[in-house]
Amino acid sequence: MGEGLKIIEVKQSILADNDMDAQNLRKELKAKGVFLLNLMSSPGAGKTTLLKRTIAALKDEMRIAVMEADIDSDVDAAAIAQTGAKVIQLHTGGMCHLDASMTRQGLQALGADGCDLVVLENVGNLVCPAEFDTGASKNAVILSVPEGHDKPQKYPLMFQVANVLLISKTDVLPYFDFDMEALKKHAHYRNPGLEILPLSARTGDGFDAWLDWLRGAVRDWKQQ
Amino acid sequence: MGEGLKIIEVKQSILADNDMDAQNLRKELKAKGVFLLNLMSSPGAGKTTLLKRTIAALKDEMRIAVMEADIDSDVDAAAIAQTGAKVIQLHTGGMCHLDASMTRQGLQALGADGCDLVVLENVGNLVCPAEFDTGASKNAVILSVPEGHDKPQKYPLMFQVANVLLISKTDVLPYFDFDMEALKKHAHYRNPGLEILPLSARTGDGFDAWLDWLRGAVRDWKQQ
Repeated sequence: MGEGLKIIEVKQSILADNDMDAQNLRKELKAKGVFLLNLMSSPGAGKTTLLKRTIAALKDEMRIAVMEADIDSDVDAAAIAQTGAKVIQLHTGGMCHLDASMTRQGLQALGADGCDLVVLENVGNLVCPAEFDTGASKNAVILSVPEGHDKPQKYPLMFQVANVLLISKTDVLPYFDFDMEALKKHAHYRNPGLEILPLSARTGDGFDAWLDWLRGAVRDWKQQ
Repeated sequence: MGEGLKIIEVKQSILADNDMDAQNLRKELKAKGVFLLNLMSSPGAGKTTLLKRTIAALKDEMRIAVMEADIDSDVDAAAIAQTGAKVIQLHTGGMCHLDASMTRQGLQALGADGCDLVVLENVGNLVCPAEFDTGASKNAVILSVPEGHDKPQKYPLMFQVANVLLISKTDVLPYFDFDMEALKKHAHYRNPGLEILPLSARTGDGFDAWLDWLRGAVRDWKQQ
C-alpha cells in the first residue's frame, strides 16, 4: 500500500430517496465547480489503465482527484497514487455499488473542494452501479473489446444511464470477433444520444477524442 | 428467439434462510442423481462459448440441460438452443444473482429430473452471485485472460466459493500482460484447494482437462 493512502469504509444511505440525495449532491458540486465523473465497467475492462493515461495527459490543465471504490482491496488506489493524483480508496463492505450518500462521504474524506475533476471509479460491475444515481455530473461506461459487442442487449440499464461509452482495448480487435457496427446499433437502440468513443489506453489510439470529450464536459459544467 | 424457447421470471426467495434452502435443494438433487453446476464470471468472460463447446463434447455421454440467467435478454439461451441441449431462460427482474429458491423455480420449469448435468449460467457478475448459495453441486468460475490476473485480490469471495477456476481465452495470452503464476498465487491465497484450469474454448487448448474434471465431478456426485 502506498504511504499515506487513505482508505475509508463507506456506509449505505439511510435516506429512502437516493435520487433526491443525488440531485442535491449534483447541485452542490455544480456550485463549487467540481465535475464528478462516475466511471463504470465490468471487472477488467480497463478503468484504472484508462484513468492513469487520462491523468497523465490532463494533470497540467486541471486539478484532478480520484475515488477508487472496491469491495475490499486497494490495488487500484495504489496504482493511481503513482500518477501523483490525489486519491482515496472507498471500501463498500461487500456492496456492489455506490449510492449518493456513499459518494458524498468519499468526497468529504477526499477533500474534493477546489478540484476541477473528480473521478469515481465505481465497483467493477455492469448491473448494480447502473441502478444508483451517485450524484455525478456525467456517467462514463467502458466496454472492452474482449467482452463482446452483445453487452448492451444483456445489460441495458448500464447503457441507458451512460453519457459516454468508451470501447476500450481496440488494439486487440484483430484477435476477437467484435462487431463495432453491431455494438453501435445495440447501444444506440438503448440510448440514441450516447456518445461512443473507441480507444486503446495502451497505444493511445482514439485517446485524443476521449480527452476532448472530457475537457468539454468539465468546461461546460463550470460555465453553464 | 428460438422456437419453443421458454422464458420464466424467477422471484427472490421469501425464505429468510437461503443457506438452509440451498442445502435442501442440494440434497434433493443428490437423491435424483442430478449434478447442478453453477457457472459464474464477469460479463464477457466466455461462459456461453465454453458451454457450447462443453455440450458438443459431452452430449453423447450424458443428458445435459442449461438454465440461462439474465437480467432481461435471451441472447444466450438462443445460442445454447442451437446446440440441441434442453435450455430455459431465467429472467431475474433486475437482480444481479440467483438464490436457491430462484434456482429451484428454474429447475422445475426446465424439467430437470432425469438429467445427468444441469448447468446454471449465472448473471455475469463477480460480486453478487458469490454471496448466494444456489444449491449447486459445484461452483465454477471463469476468469478470462483480458480481465487480468489481479481479480482474485479484488473479488475475493468469488474465488473463495469456487471449486474450479477456468482461465479462459488463453489463445490471446500473447496480447495481454497476464501473469499466470501471479494469478495462481493470488487465487490459492484465497482458496488453497482451488483447481485452476487454463483453456481456450476457441482453439480447444486445455479443454480435455476441463471435460475430465466435469466428468469426474458428475460421476462422483452419482456415486457418493
